[in-house]
Amino acid sequence: MARNLARILGGCGSLVPFMKTPACPPRNSSSIPPARTLVQMLFSKSRDFSLPNSSWGEEMMRLYEFYNGQSDVETEGEENQGREWKRLPSYNRSLKYATGGVYLSKIIQSKARLFTRNIREPGAAFEYVLFINKEKERCVCVFQAGHLLEGPPGHVHGGAIATMIDTVTGTHASAISAPVMTANLNIDYRSPIPLGSTVLIESTLEKTEGRKLYISCKVTSTDGSKRHTDATALFVSISVAHLLKG
Amino acid sequence: MARNLARILGGCGSLVPFMKTPACPPRNSSSIPPARTLVQMLFSKSRDFSLPNSSWGEEMMRLYEFYNGQSDVETEGEENQGREWKRLPSYNRSLKYATGGVYLSKIIQSKARLFTRNIREPGAAFEYVLFINKEKERCVCVFQAGHLLEGPPGHVHGGAIATMIDTVTGTHASAISAPVMTANLNIDYRSPIPLGSTVLIESTLEKTEGRKLYISCKVTSTDGSKRHTDATALFVSISVAHLLKG
Repeated sequence: MARNLARILGGCGSLVPFMKTPACPPRNSSSIPPARTLVQMLFSKSRDFSLPNSSWGEEMMRLYEFYNGQSDVETEGEENQGREWKRLPSYNRSLKYATGGVYLSKIIQSKARLFTRNIREPGAAFEYVLFINKEKERCVCVFQAGHLLEGPPGHVHGGAIATMIDTVTGTHASAISAPVMTANLNIDYRSPIPLGSTVLIESTLEKTEGRKLYISCKVTSTDGSKRHTDATALFVSISVAHLLKG
Repeated sequence: MARNLARILGGCGSLVPFMKTPACPPRNSSSIPPARTLVQMLFSKSRDFSLPNSSWGEEMMRLYEFYNGQSDVETEGEENQGREWKRLPSYNRSLKYATGGVYLSKIIQSKARLFTRNIREPGAAFEYVLFINKEKERCVCVFQAGHLLEGPPGHVHGGAIATMIDTVTGTHASAISAPVMTANLNIDYRSPIPLGSTVLIESTLEKTEGRKLYISCKVTSTDGSKRHTDATALFVSISVAHLLKG
């Protein structure tokens, strides 16, 4: 199933990271705010979590600046500058009124937050920024693991690592073929990740077969010397009609 | 790698759910509170998150009472009453001073929280309770998904589902052979889980081969009619000496 904000835009078949305005009409007017309100909710007040904050450590900042320095600045209506990477913005809301949410209570809908961005305290949980390369063959994520992600003493929970792998590979898959659903994640845990550390998560498109996208992923120390985790992910691109079934 | 509070007790090789007192001495006296303080930290003030709270819905309560009614009440020094299940308590701290944490800053150590219990607002994130059967062949978890676990609009994030699968199978494995490390998780996502819903997560021991434990897991609707997720997990039991290497 498609799992995150970056992957699908409420059944509109668009990608949030590349979206400017919602493209499809609401289907349940009783529980859906007007389109302009939705735009305001998403873009007027939304914080972009992919930008640096005071909790980012030296290694996180160094790698952010490295990839950002090789990235196109997104300027509406202008050609990109031909650089290798593109930073993907990241918010803590989905367009939950478009699909699925219609049978949820309004309380749940209004309070819902993206799992990886559900804690506002900077540095406490998932601090990360994703860059995608221009040809979309690769995606790289710089991830700083906060103290609220603990599994074994002093180390990151396996579920938190799985969450980041799902997020990075899913964002990558959706950039190639949106909307998509995650069909499988297969994760080999090789070496624990200490809390507070910064690691690199790299996603590579292996092949496509019809509607299927096969992606591999690895989590390493920032100098590449230590392999923490290996994974493969399978995504299936779906029709908008399928999404709208909820 | 072993990933949660229920799985390992800071390298002591004991299980937190069954532990009464820490069994091994501290290895770095400068950063480790006295043993009595540790016990106080864990059991005097700790909230047991496996007990019902006001956020638990009707289905969560019904299933809790069903399994709890078939469970032994843990009474120190007394024989169990021969019932089928046993509820496992759940806290939000690890004994982080015993392993791994020695090279973390004291700030991170003191603020660290178990990933699945890092939000105190009842009902907002992971509400769950685990029961293990007496022969330890099966483990069952009743899980109510809060609004902060969103992935696709109105549904639970794939990483949050992976987190619960890691938690349930890992707790199960550690009850059979503690301490253990998660070596692999392989997850098939079949049907999305709506936010706010309650589901069953069942873990079954498939086989053991030397130090390896093979466990299967499924996530279903509470009446069993809908299969949300299938998974397999591989755990490797490790020596205390291995854990102490950090």
